[in-house]
Amino acid sequence: MEKRYASRMEGLSGNVIRDIFKLIDMPDIISFAGGTPSPSTFPVDDVKRISSHVLDTEGRRILQYGATEGYAPLRATVAGMMKRIGIRAGAENVLAVTGGMQGVDLMCKAFLDVGDAVLVESPTFLGALHTMKLYRPRIIPVPMDAEGMLMDALEERLVKFRPKFIYTIPTFQNPTGKTLGLERRKRMLELARKHGALILEDDPYRDLRYFGEGVPPIAAMDEGLENTAYLMSFSKILSPGLRVGAIIAEPGLHRKLTICKQGVDVHTSLLAQAIASEFVDGGYLARNLPQSIETYRDQLSAMLKGFDAFPAGVSHTKPEGGLFVWAELPGETDTAEVLKEAVKKGVAFIPGASFFTEPGHANTMRLNFSMSDAATITRGMGFLAEVLQSGM
Amino acid sequence: MEKRYASRMEGLSGNVIRDIFKLIDMPDIISFAGGTPSPSTFPVDDVKRISSHVLDTEGRRILQYGATEGYAPLRATVAGMMKRIGIRAGAENVLAVTGGMQGVDLMCKAFLDVGDAVLVESPTFLGALHTMKLYRPRIIPVPMDAEGMLMDALEERLVKFRPKFIYTIPTFQNPTGKTLGLERRKRMLELARKHGALILEDDPYRDLRYFGEGVPPIAAMDEGLENTAYLMSFSKILSPGLRVGAIIAEPGLHRKLTICKQGVDVHTSLLAQAIASEFVDGGYLARNLPQSIETYRDQLSAMLKGFDAFPAGVSHTKPEGGLFVWAELPGETDTAEVLKEAVKKGVAFIPGASFFTEPGHANTMRLNFSMSDAATITRGMGFLAEVLQSGM
Repeated sequence: MEKRYASRMEGLSGNVIRDIFKLIDMPDIISFAGGTPSPSTFPVDDVKRISSHVLDTEGRRILQYGATEGYAPLRATVAGMMKRIGIRAGAENVLAVTGGMQGVDLMCKAFLDVGDAVLVESPTFLGALHTMKLYRPRIIPVPMDAEGMLMDALEERLVKFRPKFIYTIPTFQNPTGKTLGLERRKRMLELARKHGALILEDDPYRDLRYFGEGVPPIAAMDEGLENTAYLMSFSKILSPGLRVGAIIAEPGLHRKLTICKQGVDVHTSLLAQAIASEFVDGGYLARNLPQSIETYRDQLSAMLKGFDAFPAGVSHTKPEGGLFVWAELPGETDTAEVLKEAVKKGVAFIPGASFFTEPGHANTMRLNFSMSDAATITRGMGFLAEVLQSGM
Repeated sequence: MEKRYASRMEGLSGNVIRDIFKLIDMPDIISFAGGTPSPSTFPVDDVKRISSHVLDTEGRRILQYGATEGYAPLRATVAGMMKRIGIRAGAENVLAVTGGMQGVDLMCKAFLDVGDAVLVESPTFLGALHTMKLYRPRIIPVPMDAEGMLMDALEERLVKFRPKFIYTIPTFQNPTGKTLGLERRKRMLELARKHGALILEDDPYRDLRYFGEGVPPIAAMDEGLENTAYLMSFSKILSPGLRVGAIIAEPGLHRKLTICKQGVDVHTSLLAQAIASEFVDGGYLARNLPQSIETYRDQLSAMLKGFDAFPAGVSHTKPEGGLFVWAELPGETDTAEVLKEAVKKGVAFIPGASFFTEPGHANTMRLNFSMSDAATITRGMGFLAEVLQSGM
């Protein structure tokens, strides 16, 4: 039978990185291609202990249907976390989501009609682009410099496209590792207010800071959350496999997102929510995070040092946290070709073109440093340097 | 700031049953209003044991990101369950979903453009209607008799509306408790084939059979799953709070649904999937289910017996399983008014009008029997009989 799919399915092929993962799926390859936290940071024993504990104390409640808004203890936990980063929100502003990606999906569902505009950083997170594309909006890229989105370019596009929202990852952005500075954050909020736009602040990497001083969330400057929705996630600080995050929004928007979530999965797994809540409230996060940060700091340092052996003309970001470094090769280089040579040497990365909505940018690449120890990263960067020095 | 929501949000108010739950939220009320399994059936200790076990053996895999298609052991488990009910499907046909509701959402996402037609039983599951409405289709009700959807009415609507799919709960339907007979199942599949329609067979109550002989799923008659997508759930046989189910589909449709799920929540919580898998494979389901069935059988019997004291002119279904009984009062009675009197006596139910897409049906009601023991149900049915006998 010929199936008559919806128009939104036309031309959608799923995650393009998948093909790259097939290319690099070989033993002993040093992979800078991933985008996941290191399994070495996963608190398996803690989760086991916490799971038993929450089932002992709240088992029948956790196994029953729950409220769409979220498990009450988790909502209180997240509200507390928000307070500590300056976001004035109560538990009533918290909507638990099945991983941060669902927050993006719910925002799209609540706001996007076909053809509506959304502004995104150029480049931006591939997964968010896929989620958005299923709503068939016009996705408008906003150029960045070393400090993130350019505010003049943003204002120009706010006026011209009147977007439903601005999607930004202001801290340790995926794929670039860039962090939007304080002044620009203030300016972005000002522009959003001036032009009646909403900011979706996706902030999953905030706690993974290895160097330098923290910058407050945009949402922390937006009293009453009139122009921001803040998306947090437990994927990078506890576990992505549990699928728990939260979106923090003013009551009107919170209600709309809840109505959307009712129709999507009713509620997020209560066992996962209960584990995330106790992971924070029981002090496990505070005990585990410094160790993860130390591990990742060494790995990031090794990667940054590895660039020293790269040929002149290669530029790269110098992130203070997160999971990614971004590099640009001289204009004519095609990193998809570099990748083929690199794989032969035993090292892999993701060509950067995938992270843009517009064509071009073939000379860019994303390098992840979370999946190998520092020594292996040094070795892998050495292989990459050889490939690039060889002139390819 | 005035937020510019998507057109799909217009007139959506969330679950209408919520208001009823507020009305009946008082201590000591006997509630036939729920739609959830009995917490007494939740295997809290088993889940605790299984959670520890799967974290011990596969902890780092379970806490990491997983494949959108599902956790491999869970996919194999579900394929085995399908074989036992006659559906010829392999693990590659199984897509894990975050509760059965997500299966409905993914089908809508893959198929529905604004204005497309979907056929549903009249009445049908409120939650599925809400999920569908977010895609702004034409929802076309198909009338039922005691044995479920009427096949002539179905064919007429297949021709007239050319629906993208038929949504059916053929076994112990919510809200009526009706089961579509074998001949009608065959006929529905024949009609779907003849008119190029797809059947979404939502079958969460299948294992909750207390009397009589099982009827094979429609999908079991559809070799190659050309015209059916089969939706199973662990919500009624293990726990709704975990949010695990699966949709079983032919490879082409499976791929489209996977692409949709990538954009929705990446994947379902791996801990929940691992628990569901081991719950079946470790023999826990086989040990627990008979006890649940025995409990529910007594409760259903008590409810059905309670109708004997109702006034003449009340008709009701006689389900052989599931969680619901459906009743129709004489034509002029408004069950919303009956509910007000009933609550004063200390018993509650859901007026049936909510489950229809068209106006009317004010004389119908849904009665759930899973949340009270048999003696309490007998008492509650007595109160209801008094209210109705009083002429109201």
